[in-house]
Amino acid sequence: MKIINLVGVFLAVIMSFAAFNIWASEASSGKEKVVIQVSDADAGKWNLTLNNAKNIQQMLGADNVEIEIVVYGPGIAMLKADSVVGNRVEEAKAANISIVACQNTMKGMKLTEADMLPNTSYVPAGVVELMHKQKAGFAYIRP
Amino acid sequence: MKIINLVGVFLAVIMSFAAFNIWASEASSGKEKVVIQVSDADAGKWNLTLNNAKNIQQMLGADNVEIEIVVYGPGIAMLKADSVVGNRVEEAKAANISIVACQNTMKGMKLTEADMLPNTSYVPAGVVELMHKQKAGFAYIRP
Amino acid sequence: MKIINLVGVFLAVIMSFAAFNIWASEASSGKEKVVIQVSDADAGKWNLTLNNAKNIQQMLGADNVEIEIVVYGPGIAMLKADSVVGNRVEEAKAANISIVACQNTMKGMKLTEADMLPNTSYVPAGVVELMHKQKAGFAYIRP
Repeated sequence: MKIINLVGVFLAVIMSFAAFNIWASEASSGKEKVVIQVSDADAGKWNLTLNNAKNIQQMLGADNVEIEIVVYGPGIAMLKADSVVGNRVEEAKAANISIVACQNTMKGMKLTEADMLPNTSYVPAGVVELMHKQKAGFAYIRP
Repeated sequence: MKIINLVGVFLAVIMSFAAFNIWASEASSGKEKVVIQVSDADAGKWNLTLNNAKNIQQMLGADNVEIEIVVYGPGIAMLKADSVVGNRVEEAKAANISIVACQNTMKGMKLTEADMLPNTSYVPAGVVELMHKQKAGFAYIRP
Repeated sequence: MKIINLVGVFLAVIMSFAAFNIWASEASSGKEKVVIQVSDADAGKWNLTLNNAKNIQQMLGADNVEIEIVVYGPGIAMLKADSVVGNRVEEAKAANISIVACQNTMKGMKLTEADMLPNTSYVPAGVVELMHKQKAGFAYIRP
C-alpha cells in the first residue's frame, strides 16, 4: 500500500509540474496580445490597420496590450520611405506599437533598408512571424 | 516519509486543480464556436459572409455551433437601415446567428442607432471583440 | 489520515492524467501547422498564397511544417482545370502542400470534379475545414 502511495504521489507530482508549467506559461503575462496583418497595396487598409491598433490601445489601455503589425507582400509599400502613411507609422511606433517589415518580401522586390522608413524593424518572413505569434497566444486580425 | 508524502499529495492536489480547471473550461461547452469578420465595403463579401454562416449551421447543425459576425470599419454599411442585404441579415438573426456592429466605427462615421437596421446589437469596439472571441476559443474567419 | 492520503493521491492521479493528456496531445507532433485561406477571385492573391506556402517551407524546413490551403467561395477558380496558376498548384502539391477545394462552393457554382484540376482533393465545406484546422492548433493566414 505504501509503495502504491509513493508511486502515485511521484507520478502525480511529476505530471502536475508539467501541467502547471503549461498553465503558468499561458497565464504568464497579464497582457492581451494581438498581431495585425497588412498584405494589401491599399492605403485605405493601412489607415484602417493603424486606426484598429489605436482603438485597441484606447479600449484596453496601452499598458495592457501588446500589438504587433506585420507588413508583407504587396503591403510592404506601407513602410517604404515614401509611404503615404509614414507620419502615422512613426506615431504608432512612438505609442509602443511594434511594426515589422518582411525581409523575404523586400528581397523579392529588390528593396533594401535604405528604401524603408528610418528605424523600421525587420523579420525574416512575415508569414512565419504571423504563425509564431498565433502560437504564442496572439489573436490574429486581418483588417 | 509521512511528511514528504503529505507535502507531495498537497502540492499535487493544488496543481491538479489548477490544471483541471483549464481543461474543464476548455471543454466546457460542447459547441463549436466561430467569429466571422466583416470589414469591407463590399456587398459581395457581405453575401459571402452570410452564406458562410448558413453553411456552417447546415454542416454542423445549428444547435452545435455558436456563430458571431463582427461588422466594423468600412463594412459597417452592411448593418445600416438601407443595407442591400438587410433582409438576409434579419434572416440570419432569426436563425440565431449573432451579428454585432462596432460603436467605435459608428462614432467615427457619425452614425447613430437610428441609422442602423432595427434590433441591431452593438459592441464598443469590433476589433477588441474579435480579439476576445479568439481568446475564448472561437475560430476566426475573414471571408 | 491514511484515507485522506489515499483520496488525495487518487484525485491527483486522475486529474493529472487528464492534464497530461492535454499537454501530450498539444505537444504530440513536433511539426508547426498552418492553414491558408483562398476566397478571392484574384490571381494576384493565388500567387501570393503559393509564395507564402513556399516561403514557410523554406524558412522552417518542408519536413517541419504541415501546410493546408483551403480554396472556397469566389476563390474556387484557382483550382479549376483552366486555372492560370494550374502549374504552380501542381508544383505545390508535389512539394507536399495540401490544397483542398470546397464542395459546397462547387455545388453552388454547378462545378463537378470534371471541371477541376486533376488530382484535386475535396472537403465538404471550406469554412468548416478552416474552423476545424484552427481547433486542431493550426495557425490561420488569409493572404
